[in-house]
Amino acid sequence: MEFLKAVSSLEALAMINSFRADPAKETIGINDALHRILAEDILSVEDIPPFPRSLVDGFALKVKDIQGAKETTPLFLYVQGEIRIGEAPRVELEDGKCVYLATGAMIPEGADGVVMQEFVRAAGDAIEVTKTLHRGENICFQGEDIAKGAVVLQKGRKLSPFDIGVLSVIGRPIVPVYKLPVAGVISTGDEIVSAEETPPLGKIRDINGHTITNLLKGNGADCSFFGIGKDTVDSIAGKLHLARECDLIILSGGSSKGQRDYMADAITRLGGEILFHGINIKPGKPTIFGKLWGKPVFGLPGHPNSCAMVMMRFVLPLLRKLKGEEGYREKKMAGILSTNIPSTSGVEEYVKVATREADGDCYVSPVFSKSSVISSFVGASGYVIIPEGKDGCEKDERVEVHLFE
Amino acid sequence: MEFLKAVSSLEALAMINSFRADPAKETIGINDALHRILAEDILSVEDIPPFPRSLVDGFALKVKDIQGAKETTPLFLYVQGEIRIGEAPRVELEDGKCVYLATGAMIPEGADGVVMQEFVRAAGDAIEVTKTLHRGENICFQGEDIAKGAVVLQKGRKLSPFDIGVLSVIGRPIVPVYKLPVAGVISTGDEIVSAEETPPLGKIRDINGHTITNLLKGNGADCSFFGIGKDTVDSIAGKLHLARECDLIILSGGSSKGQRDYMADAITRLGGEILFHGINIKPGKPTIFGKLWGKPVFGLPGHPNSCAMVMMRFVLPLLRKLKGEEGYREKKMAGILSTNIPSTSGVEEYVKVATREADGDCYVSPVFSKSSVISSFVGASGYVIIPEGKDGCEKDERVEVHLFE
Repeated sequence: MEFLKAVSSLEALAMINSFRADPAKETIGINDALHRILAEDILSVEDIPPFPRSLVDGFALKVKDIQGAKETTPLFLYVQGEIRIGEAPRVELEDGKCVYLATGAMIPEGADGVVMQEFVRAAGDAIEVTKTLHRGENICFQGEDIAKGAVVLQKGRKLSPFDIGVLSVIGRPIVPVYKLPVAGVISTGDEIVSAEETPPLGKIRDINGHTITNLLKGNGADCSFFGIGKDTVDSIAGKLHLARECDLIILSGGSSKGQRDYMADAITRLGGEILFHGINIKPGKPTIFGKLWGKPVFGLPGHPNSCAMVMMRFVLPLLRKLKGEEGYREKKMAGILSTNIPSTSGVEEYVKVATREADGDCYVSPVFSKSSVISSFVGASGYVIIPEGKDGCEKDERVEVHLFE
Repeated sequence: MEFLKAVSSLEALAMINSFRADPAKETIGINDALHRILAEDILSVEDIPPFPRSLVDGFALKVKDIQGAKETTPLFLYVQGEIRIGEAPRVELEDGKCVYLATGAMIPEGADGVVMQEFVRAAGDAIEVTKTLHRGENICFQGEDIAKGAVVLQKGRKLSPFDIGVLSVIGRPIVPVYKLPVAGVISTGDEIVSAEETPPLGKIRDINGHTITNLLKGNGADCSFFGIGKDTVDSIAGKLHLARECDLIILSGGSSKGQRDYMADAITRLGGEILFHGINIKPGKPTIFGKLWGKPVFGLPGHPNSCAMVMMRFVLPLLRKLKGEEGYREKKMAGILSTNIPSTSGVEEYVKVATREADGDCYVSPVFSKSSVISSFVGASGYVIIPEGKDGCEKDERVEVHLFE
């Protein structure tokens, strides 16, 4: 009965990803935009650089004027003047002449190369050039970095520090981004008390509320914690009602079958629908996913280990979708198993691992734990996935480590 | 003259790391502590779990009472009652009896195993047990997750969402962390205008101020931007003075030799000391590092590409030290080069790369750019280091990609 709707991990992800996300937009200053998601393609309306610039300290000249110049047979050019950094040249370069300029200064009209100071000898009002140049040498041309009209950053991109530099240089001090999704988090369980309390015998302080909230915050959600519900349909329904304005609701709790039934019943009593109850994964099997008030709602297992793994594998991908993020790439690392890992056939299994670098290779060892244990995360740096059809992994096998972020 | 004090990248890092950091502490609530650095070792003053708990829904019993139980020859136990989740047992388990409990409920005194509901048949006030157990089966013992007195999280650790769960369960709702270091950022250059301005011919909008500020913010600094200084010693000294209360000062600018001299002169005029001027790296050679008012000060190259690389390789490691962070591990990925990369012998070279996964391997291609170009960061996901003594890398060579974070 309980796992009537148990699904594979791929089916679960497909159902989760079928949620239509339509995040609202807002406009913010680029200095508040780090890690926010762009809501529109950004085109440059200017060439960058906006003018041809020198890449070196030296003399701008006409390349044809120094054909054949060598150390032994230097060619003379009259120095027409200097172009200072940040200034527009006042005159066009004349034949047989050159202009001194520093790195970053604008190339004058008529010049098509810059000879570095090192290849020049001073000779009164003139210079001796001891080297030929090819056309365009030591010049960064107008629009060579970013061409006017080019899409420089695409909609759905998570803005990096470099992207913010790009937005500045093209003159976009404010940008359209998606609003942060609001996530509501609820812990449940008669045995759970808050971090501030001294639990009486038989009770234990909340773990999942904190882990979930901080995983969401660290991945760009605006998070509200609505406290700890009791093991009754009424109590859980009351908490869900508090979270009804949220874009995503996450319950956790329910190590026992009875507790899980309260979560599922509370969702359906409020008019919600359970889309699946149970995923063929370990840990994390008793996961509930449904729709309530048109919004996604998860009922995560009470075991902290299971809860955290389901957060990473199933909830954060949905969060990224609700944020409008596109092109996310998980950070993964290849490594060599330093011991066998047994697994249960017929379920997709997640095994937390520690990694150690030696001789340019990465060695991977499992961090085993009972599913109630959260402290095992402290010593692990990621996890390995053992697919449903595979009977464990063997020592010396190459595996892919999914890194915690 | 200019590169009189040029050093190798290892020498530069050694000088940077020789700065003594003594970050101040503060105490904050765990819900504000994500990614903050622990200022003390955290010991648990309690066993976690604080009592033995059942890992399954079933019946707590004395293992000796069901020796030899089988499907065909089940053994009977009288049901003494039920222990509800979150409740302390009122009685001790008697010989020949059992107690019903759900996952997470406390194991009563006298019980040393829990048989899962699946291996039990109801028989009035009693149950038939169809399976033997080993001692301790399906029990998570008191202190098995975290033992009283154990150091659970070490000083210098950057707090993860899982760590915050651990702090909650051991009853540490507030924690000692290091204060965020305050970084002061200054752009310089007569050619630089702010993101909000329309640059007149010959000028360009600031990039580095934004890239530096956001790299620092994303890595846990409290950041102040003091605006854009002109190319005079007076102007730069004035800006430095504004930043005198900061724990770390970062100037950028100076594509030309003249501009770089203004930065170095301003630092020394205010009584500071230049520790090195020039690192044998590419890009990023004209990097200045010094000490001013006892604090570290960097003069970063004006080329945005150089500036960003020096930030990642040399400034962020110092920031982590100033934060009190220990045990940092860079995120790296092994990959196969899909093309040759030439390099300049005698300098340590950083080559930005794009990565592509195919058939379980990661293919790495360089993203070449002139050093003035910031847009090349948009298409790259990390960089490869070519050591000083190595002449480039060859197609199909295995390389290590340092990932942007």
